Parts: sequence; structure tokens; C-alpha cells
Amino acid sequence: MRICLTIDYVGTAYAGWQVQPGQTTVQGALETALEKLTGEKIGVVASGRTDAGVHALGQVVHFDTDKTWGASAFVGGLNRYLPRDIRVLTAEQVAPDFHARFSAKRKTYVYRMYVGDVERAIYSGRALRVEPLDVDAMQRAAARFVGRQDFASLCAANADTTTTERTVYVADVFARGDELYFKVTADGFLYNMVRIMVGLLLRVGRGQLSADGVAAILAARDRTAARDTAPAHGLYLLCVEYENRGTDRAAT
Amino acid sequence: MRICLTIDYVGTAYAGWQVQPGQTTVQGALETALEKLTGEKIGVVASGRTDAGVHALGQVVHFDTDKTWGASAFVGGLNRYLPRDIRVLTAEQVAPDFHARFSAKRKTYVYRMYVGDVERAIYSGRALRVEPLDVDAMQRAAARFVGRQDFASLCAANADTTTTERTVYVADVFARGDELYFKVTADGFLYNMVRIMVGLLLRVGRGQLSADGVAAILAARDRTAARDTAPAHGLYLLCVEYENRGTDRAAT
Repeated sequence: MRICLTIDYVGTAYAGWQVQPGQTTVQGALETALEKLTGEKIGVVASGRTDAGVHALGQVVHFDTDKTWGASAFVGGLNRYLPRDIRVLTAEQVAPDFHARFSAKRKTYVYRMYVGDVERAIYSGRALRVEPLDVDAMQRAAARFVGRQDFASLCAANADTTTTERTVYVADVFARGDELYFKVTADGFLYNMVRIMVGLLLRVGRGQLSADGVAAILAARDRTAARDTAPAHGLYLLCVEYENRGTDRAAT
Repeated sequence: MRICLTIDYVGTAYAGWQVQPGQTTVQGALETALEKLTGEKIGVVASGRTDAGVHALGQVVHFDTDKTWGASAFVGGLNRYLPRDIRVLTAEQVAPDFHARFSAKRKTYVYRMYVGDVERAIYSGRALRVEPLDVDAMQRAAARFVGRQDFASLCAANADTTTTERTVYVADVFARGDELYFKVTADGFLYNMVRIMVGLLLRVGRGQLSADGVAAILAARDRTAARDTAPAHGLYLLCVEYENRGTDRAAT
């Protein structure tokens, strides 16, 4: 039986999603909880990795189990064994060919910032402090990310990927009180792509780069063209969308 | 020289504000940082204590020092020695008769909730999970808190206080997305008063108590009348207002 979970986590205490020897990771914590709950050694597959310090509000994972429990049993069951900074939000049975990574159609990330002169404890590890920025200019520049484009310029130089073409559906910058958000939806993201987008937008917000400058960096298709990568701790994987997760949609 | 600080903190890791033997407290952390910075043993006075797990976005404290540095030196200086979950936001020199507690005119607390079926990691220790509630009814009930009243019914039974009369200036319940807030401003609060108010409002939101019922509980002036105290971790001290902090208003 294949089960699909939606989970959220605060990434601060973790060396990212993926299991690594000697490191505390979100995947490791989830697999440990699954073994405690089911007695089975179960590997989980996520929609994608998140780096150390990155958070998720709606990460999606799947795994296979011999248990024939109703899917919702995995919500309360896993939450009993998981640390408080990882929670299972929903669980559903899916078709055997559902795959959290390969079936994903769209992903949305949010990058969270706050405007201020000094660091605030409440945002520690959860949002990037920024100086006052030109939000309108950032919004105009973000619009240049939208569309089917080659994002080679927004990819970490060491990333291993076959194609650097992606479709960005939405790229918005907006303020809410003291907080500033960049929200971006695409059919997929290159390694560090969102954090490099934010790095560019911060330069725009400071008046150091224009929207045309952003377009020129994109057009260069050069992995060394955009080298300001915003810190991990402002980044949140908001949600992952699928066409159809298969059978039983009932959850929690 | 008397210095007044505004600080924020995430209360999760602390046994409240006040120094207690063998416990990690916010006051203790601040006094330790002050000693490291100045070489002086300095006691700090806050606008009021906060309980274990309660947060502050704008706690105000004062202390006296022999140093003749500009006040703003205390912002960066203390932040170097403080843990990341406590930050100094502003520092200013104040008149020698300024007192963080006795000079305070109004305080505002916010209680943060989120509506959901399951706990979310992102809110762990930071907001109370609630079921869907009747927000309009809660807002109508909250209005009954406003005014000069005897709040004996909203005071922890073991609290040591001379008078239980207080003036509530603002008491609002409002939703923002999945989140629900109760915001209350008064000239002072009895022990656990905000958390007991929230306990009452939650009963109202569930349809178990009416606004008139809240008024009747207030009128009873009975410390055992309202015994549902909402958990500490949703509570934030938002700000403390003073008529005049005295001399040098320049900060950070």
C-alpha cells in the first residue's frame, strides 16, 4: 500500500531533508518514526530535498507499507513519535504509481523577509532581516522570472541537472506590515534557484540592479552570472501540486 | 546613568522572565550579557514578568550603569552576548526616575491561535491550535472586557494583588488567514488575566458561553468563576507604553 503524507517542519535543527551519516535530518526523523510505528524499515521519498535550515509548510512524501490501516492512522501515529518541529498534516492512500517527486506538477516556495534596523528574536532562523527596499521595483523585476525560460543563470554552479529550462507560473513580491515576501510557483526548480532569485531581487530593492538587468542575467544563461544566494533560513516550501494522487483522497 | 531597553524574545527555552535558582530565565540571560559587556553586576527591572513559554515582541526593561557610553552601544553590545532567541531592539538613556514597571501606562498583549485539525510544526510553541470558532461571537464577548472594571473573576486565585480594578482600553478578536488573534490593551493586567480572557473567549467561540455569560462572570468578582486558563505558548507581550521616558530619545 502506498501512502502519501503532507508534512510541515521547521528546518532550523536539521541538516536538511536528506539522510546523511552522522547528521540529524528530516528524512531520518520521519523514517525513524515510521519504523517505531510500523515495525517496518521504510524508506520515504520527498517531492524534493530541502537544504539545511530551509522550512516546509507543505512538503509531500510517499512510502510503501505492508500495513493495511486506514491512511489517517498515520497522522496521529507518526506525530506521536516525531519531534514537535516535524508534523504530519495529512495522510492518504495513493495509486501504486504515484511518486512524490516524479508526479509533482508545480511547486511553490515563499521567501520571508522583515524590514528592520536590528535582528529580532521572533524571526531568528525564520526570516531574513533586510533594510527598507523598493518593493515596487522588486515586483517589476520578479515579473521577468515568469514564463518558460532557460534558468541556467539561476542555478548553483555545481548542480547536476540535465536541462535548465523551467516554467515559472507566478513570481510575486509583496509586503505585509513589516514583513516582505517573495512567492514563486514553477513546474520545478534548479538547485538554489529560489535563493538566487531572492539574491537578485534584493539587489533590485537596493537600487543596484534594474528589472532589465535581471532579464539580461537570465538571457546570459551563465551559471556564474548571479552569485548572490540568499540565506537558507528565509525559505519555505509552501506546497506541491499533483494532477491526481490516485485512489483514496480521504485524510486526517 | 539609567538605560531603557526594548527587547524581544521567544520564551520557549526559558522558565519565564524572572531569575530563579537553577533555571534559565530571560532576566538571567540579560543580566549575564550585561555583566560580560560592562564588567558590572547589574540588576534589570522589566515592565512585568512573563511566565514560562510566554513571548515578548516589545518588553521594556531598565537598569543603571556607571558606563557613560551612548545608549545605542548597548544594542550591538548586548546582542553580541545574548542568545539568538533574545534580542535588544532599542536602547535609550532615560531620566533617573523612569521605572520600567511603575512608569508604564498601558500594556498590550496578543494571543495567537490557528485553526486546524492537526498540530503544525511551524506553530509549535508559538500559537495555540483551535477548532473552527465563531469569531463574531468572540468579538462581541471581547467587547465586554472593555472599560474600568473589577477583574477579580479573571485573576489567578493565588495572585497577590491589592486591587483587582483595571481599565481595558481595547479588546479585539480578529482572523487573518488561518490565524486568529486576541489583542488587548489595558493600564495593567492581573496575574494570568489575558490567558483567562482567552479561556473564556474559546468557550464563547465554541458556543458554550454567551457574551452575557462573560459579563456575568465579570460581575461575579469571584476568583474561581473563570477557571479555563489558555496555555502560555500563544501569549505575546506586544508593547508597553509610557508617558515620557525622559531625556535622550535617540536609539539604535
